[in-house]
Amino acid sequence: MNFIAAGLAIIGSALGAAYGNSKVVSKTLESMARQPEMAGELRSTMIIGMAFIEAVPILGVVVALLLVLN
Amino acid sequence: MNFIAAGLAIIGSALGAAYGNSKVVSKTLESMARQPEMAGELRSTMIIGMAFIEAVPILGVVVALLLVLN
Amino acid sequence: MNFIAAGLAIIGSALGAAYGNSKVVSKTLESMARQPEMAGELRSTMIIGMAFIEAVPILGVVVALLLVLN
Amino acid sequence: MNFIAAGLAIIGSALGAAYGNSKVVSKTLESMARQPEMAGELRSTMIIGMAFIEAVPILGVVVALLLVLN
Amino acid sequence: MNFIAAGLAIIGSALGAAYGNSKVVSKTLESMARQPEMAGELRSTMIIGMAFIEAVPILGVVVALLLVLN
Amino acid sequence: MNFIAAGLAIIGSALGAAYGNSKVVSKTLESMARQPEMAGELRSTMIIGMAFIEAVPILGVVVALLLVLN
Amino acid sequence: MNFIAAGLAIIGSALGAAYGNSKVVSKTLESMARQPEMAGELRSTMIIGMAFIEAVPILGVVVALLLVLN
Amino acid sequence: MNFIAAGLAIIGSALGAAYGNSKVVSKTLESMARQPEMAGELRSTMIIGMAFIEAVPILGVVVALLLVLN
Amino acid sequence: MNFIAAGLAIIGSALGAAYGNSKVVSKTLESMARQPEMAGELRSTMIIGMAFIEAVPILGVVVALLLVLN
Amino acid sequence: MNFIAAGLAIIGSALGAAYGNSKVVSKTLESMARQPEMAGELRSTMIIGMAFIEAVPILGVVVALLLVLN
Amino acid sequence: MNFIAAGLAIIGSALGAAYGNSKVVSKTLESMARQPEMAGELRSTMIIGMAFIEAVPILGVVVALLLVLN
Amino acid sequence: MNFIAAGLAIIGSALGAAYGNSKVVSKTLESMARQPEMAGELRSTMIIGMAFIEAVPILGVVVALLLVLN
Amino acid sequence: MNFIAAGLAIIGSALGAAYGNSKVVSKTLESMARQPEMAGELRSTMIIGMAFIEAVPILGVVVALLLVLN
Amino acid sequence: MNFIAAGLAIIGSALGAAYGNSKVVSKTLESMARQPEMAGELRSTMIIGMAFIEAVPILGVVVALLLVLN
Repeated sequence: MNFIAAGLAIIGSALGAAYGNSKVVSKTLESMARQPEMAGELRSTMIIGMAFIEAVPILGVVVALLLVLN
Repeated sequence: MNFIAAGLAIIGSALGAAYGNSKVVSKTLESMARQPEMAGELRSTMIIGMAFIEAVPILGVVVALLLVLN
Repeated sequence: MNFIAAGLAIIGSALGAAYGNSKVVSKTLESMARQPEMAGELRSTMIIGMAFIEAVPILGVVVALLLVLN
Repeated sequence: MNFIAAGLAIIGSALGAAYGNSKVVSKTLESMARQPEMAGELRSTMIIGMAFIEAVPILGVVVALLLVLN
Repeated sequence: MNFIAAGLAIIGSALGAAYGNSKVVSKTLESMARQPEMAGELRSTMIIGMAFIEAVPILGVVVALLLVLN
Repeated sequence: MNFIAAGLAIIGSALGAAYGNSKVVSKTLESMARQPEMAGELRSTMIIGMAFIEAVPILGVVVALLLVLN
Repeated sequence: MNFIAAGLAIIGSALGAAYGNSKVVSKTLESMARQPEMAGELRSTMIIGMAFIEAVPILGVVVALLLVLN
Repeated sequence: MNFIAAGLAIIGSALGAAYGNSKVVSKTLESMARQPEMAGELRSTMIIGMAFIEAVPILGVVVALLLVLN
Repeated sequence: MNFIAAGLAIIGSALGAAYGNSKVVSKTLESMARQPEMAGELRSTMIIGMAFIEAVPILGVVVALLLVLN
Repeated sequence: MNFIAAGLAIIGSALGAAYGNSKVVSKTLESMARQPEMAGELRSTMIIGMAFIEAVPILGVVVALLLVLN
Repeated sequence: MNFIAAGLAIIGSALGAAYGNSKVVSKTLESMARQPEMAGELRSTMIIGMAFIEAVPILGVVVALLLVLN
Repeated sequence: MNFIAAGLAIIGSALGAAYGNSKVVSKTLESMARQPEMAGELRSTMIIGMAFIEAVPILGVVVALLLVLN
Repeated sequence: MNFIAAGLAIIGSALGAAYGNSKVVSKTLESMARQPEMAGELRSTMIIGMAFIEAVPILGVVVALLLVLN
Repeated sequence: MNFIAAGLAIIGSALGAAYGNSKVVSKTLESMARQPEMAGELRSTMIIGMAFIEAVPILGVVVALLLVLN
């Protein structure tokens, strides 16, 4: 039963992280192409945002590993 | 049974946090590219918003950890 | 059985709060970039709105904690 | 069985309240940015609308609490 | 079994009422911002519409309470 | 078993009535804001339409009450 | 088992009738606001259309009543 | 078992007929408002189309009645 | 078991036929309103198309009748 | 068990054929209204396309008949 | 069990082939109406594309026949 | 059990291949109609892309055949 | 049980690879038609991107083969 | 049971990685076609973004391999 739970947690984490990061990165690329002179500031904001987005999925992976190695 | 519940909680938390944060960050990036002189104020509003968005998913992760370590 | 119920409650609360707050915050950011002179009033309306949105999910988390610690 | 029912009720209430309130608040913000001189009237209409929207989810939370404490 | 039914009824009622009311309120706000001189008539039409929309969900909550207290 | 059936009937009726009425009311509000001089005729058409829309969900609620009180 | 079938039939009938009628009524309102001089002809076409749309859901409600009173 | 089958058949028939007819009627209304001089021809085409659309759902209702009265 | 199969076949056939025919009819109406002088040719193409679309659902209804009367 | 399989095969075939054919026919109608002098060539391409689209669903109906008469 | 598998394979194959082919054919029709002088080249590309699209569904039908006649 | 797995694999492979190829082919047709002088280069890129897209579904069909003939 | 798992893994891999690759290829085709002089650089970026996209589905196919041949 | 969990983890990882990477790559291609002189900077941002997106799915594949070889 805990294996299924680990699989579910991986689904949520992988989809969430991939969706969130790809949205932020693609919007950064679009904005950089429109405002080349702001490329540095946009990229640093992108890094901050990705750190926040990645936080919960990484916790989810930790929970999944706890469940697998339980 | 509590393991499955932890998996479900992780799904909801990870998807919610990733969706919410990515939407806010990408809108911030878009607005910064349109109004570069407001970059500071937009980023501080982004931080406030992300704190509110992150609150419930973090509670969800806490519930998941309670369920796993139960 | 109550663990599953707690998981379901967390799913609903996390998704609802994240969706609602992110929509309000991103619309606030968009409006601030369009009308910089109204930034204060928009942000205070955002805080009121987020309080209303957060109310039911927080109650949902309380119900989930009641179910877990039952 | 009543715990699951409480979880389902929380899902519906949290998603409904968050969706409804966020839609109203974001439309209010958009309208305030377009018509700054109507900010007061728009905000009072927003409060009336949120009261109506919040009514049924709050009843749902009450039903959920009845089910948990049953 | 009747508890589950109450939960299902709450889901339908809360989602329906929140969706319907939020759509009407947000359209009212949009129309008020476009035609400020019709604010009164629009708001009274909004109240009539919300009464119709709220009718069936309130009946649904009554059915749910009948099921819980059965 | 009939309780579940009542819950399903309430879901369908509440969602249907709320969706249908909100669509008609919001379209009426939009049309009134665009053609203020036709407000009366539009509102009477709205009332006719809502009566037709409300007919089947009300029958659904009646079926649900028959099932609950069975 | 026949109670569940009645519930399913009510779901389909209520959602179908509400969706179909609301679409027709809202399109009629929109067309009346654009062509006020054709209001009568549009409304009579609306009545014909609603009669066709309502036909199958009403038969569905009859089947549901047959199943409940069986 | 045949009662459930009747319920499923009603769902499909009611949703299909309501969706199809409402789409045709609303498109007819839109076209009549744009080309008032073709109102007659459009309405006769609408009647032909609705007859074709209604054919299979009516057969579905017949199958449902066969299943209920079986 | 064959009754359920008949119900499933009716769902697919009714939804498919209604969706397909309504799409073709509404597009025909739209094209006739834009090009009134081609009304005859468009309607004959519509009849050919509806015959092709109706073919498989009618076969599905035949299969359903075979299953019911089996 | 094979009856259910026949029902599933009919669902897929009917929905697929109806969706595919209706998309092709409606696009043909739209193109004919825009380029009346190419009506013949467009209609012959439509016939070729419908033959390809219809191929697999007809095979699906054959499989369903094999399953029913098995 | 293999009959259900055949039904599932037919669903996937029929929906996939119908969706894919109809998309290609309708885009070909649209392009032919926009660039009549390229009609030949477009149609030959359409035939190549449909052969690739049809390849996997035909293999799926073969698998389904293997499962039925097993 | 392996038959069901083969059916699932066929669903994924057929839908994936049909969706992917049809998207590429239709975009190629659109681009060829816009830039007729690049028809050759576009078609060769299309062939490369379809080879990559077809790779995994063909492997999926191989897995399905392994499962059926197991 | 491992056969079902292999089927699920194939579904995910095939859909993911086909969706991802087709999106990249079609965007490449669109960009090549708009900027013919950058065709080489765009195609090399496409190859890099497809390698990254194909990586995880190929690993998924490997897992599926491990499960089948287990 | 752990095999199913591995299949679920592969589904989530493959879909997430393919969706995320394809979105980023296609946006990069679009931006490169619009701003050819920023091709280098855009591609390096793309590589950073893909590394972040790929991180969680690769962890998911590792969890899946742990589950298969368990």
